Amino acid sequence: MLVFIGLGLHGEGISLRGLREAREADDVYAELYTSMLPKLRLDELEQTIGKPIKVVDRETIEQHPNEILQAAKAGKVVFLVPGDPMVATTHVDLRLRATKAGIETKIIHAASIASAAAGLSGLQSYKFGRTATVPFPDNPSQVPYETLVENRERGLHTLLLLDIRAKEGRAMLASEAIEIMLGLEKKLQKNAFTSDTLVVVVARAGSDDAIVKADKVGRLQKLDFGSPPHVLIVPGKLHFVEVEALRVFAGAPEDAIG
Amino acid sequence: MLVFIGLGLHGEGISLRGLREAREADDVYAELYTSMLPKLRLDELEQTIGKPIKVVDRETIEQHPNEILQAAKAGKVVFLVPGDPMVATTHVDLRLRATKAGIETKIIHAASIASAAAGLSGLQSYKFGRTATVPFPDNPSQVPYETLVENRERGLHTLLLLDIRAKEGRAMLASEAIEIMLGLEKKLQKNAFTSDTLVVVVARAGSDDAIVKADKVGRLQKLDFGSPPHVLIVPGKLHFVEVEALRVFAGAPEDAIG
Repeated sequence: MLVFIGLGLHGEGISLRGLREAREADDVYAELYTSMLPKLRLDELEQTIGKPIKVVDRETIEQHPNEILQAAKAGKVVFLVPGDPMVATTHVDLRLRATKAGIETKIIHAASIASAAAGLSGLQSYKFGRTATVPFPDNPSQVPYETLVENRERGLHTLLLLDIRAKEGRAMLASEAIEIMLGLEKKLQKNAFTSDTLVVVVARAGSDDAIVKADKVGRLQKLDFGSPPHVLIVPGKLHFVEVEALRVFAGAPEDAIG
Repeated sequence: MLVFIGLGLHGEGISLRGLREAREADDVYAELYTSMLPKLRLDELEQTIGKPIKVVDRETIEQHPNEILQAAKAGKVVFLVPGDPMVATTHVDLRLRATKAGIETKIIHAASIASAAAGLSGLQSYKFGRTATVPFPDNPSQVPYETLVENRERGLHTLLLLDIRAKEGRAMLASEAIEIMLGLEKKLQKNAFTSDTLVVVVARAGSDDAIVKADKVGRLQKLDFGSPPHVLIVPGKLHFVEVEALRVFAGAPEDAIG
């Protein structure tokens, strides 16, 4: 059996059920390349679970998953994954391979950034349109800007996730993402992301030192939000309770939400 | 201090961090009216936390929140909430009241149905458009149908949550929701939800007896998915890996995905 267990957004984000399953497992693997878990202490988690955790990289999972699949055929294998397990395509692939090899699979859910970022900002989750990721400039894409334009036309909020390169130890910061989005604005000119646009930065969602700040892009760009992960939310049409929430929870100044 | 802690989708869905905060609290409240937690055993949770849990109803939270707010002024109060805490508007209101009363607030995230349902179906979460709720027929709304139409036009998947009335012990079943959506189709005729439309039913997401089934509406309507909660997903444009996932994880027959 192969059990995918979400680690949520925090070093202690695994659920009680996830912990129980991990304690019963014969082997415990983990990947830390699809997302960042700033407060995760692997040694502490190993102690809590009571067994060693084998950390695997993307190449192992995508090109040489046989070690894990063999172990899951012979016994109970747990695969620990940041956030909620199936958000990353790479894990859907692994689950497909396992099921086709006759291995039973199970998913233990945990917090995901989409729901958490919406909640922290006070914006209503059912008013979010499609989510997009802002890739690093050496792999440019218009998708995040086009997604934003589409969502705005319908009055919806847009969550922009920021790229991560675990191997290089790089995670995009809010200021970099803003620069990339302003560059796309300059190119595509739909007036969707200018220095006057209201944006919310959420840094380290799920941690005790999380920051949530709403302001005009031009001002946010100059601020330091500390270590990653960061995400951006570009609000669409705001309900008055959402305006109030941005003021109270995200320190939005009057001239940004007016 | 007022700490909102998500209970996730399962009786053991609280995170280790949530458990730690609850153990440190002076008072522990819980609401069970915004969502259903089929496997939640309150007595077991009280034992795990080590203190009694006061269950409050919607009226208390929305009209008489003073007991909680007073307690949160005097000490550390934990408020346990199904799913991820801020998805329900009612909790954003309570957090606003608390902050305005000078009370520090904190959110401990957990799994939410949006991310879980997408993950269980194998559909990619970034390809979901706006989410909508199907209300009971005595409180009719065209919003779920209109949301579906909008999402489909953009090729996006649509998650439809089903109404719940905790006080009456009622939660809408997939078959009822399908009937309501077929009724809206008959009225609005955009060809978005007919008996030939491919739909995924997810029942009891997060539980060991979760069911995920993809088929044409006409066939799903006749099936019994057991006790609630149920949700529907209406897929938009499918990537070939998603087609494969619906086949393997959701038993989609060829004539439904072809």
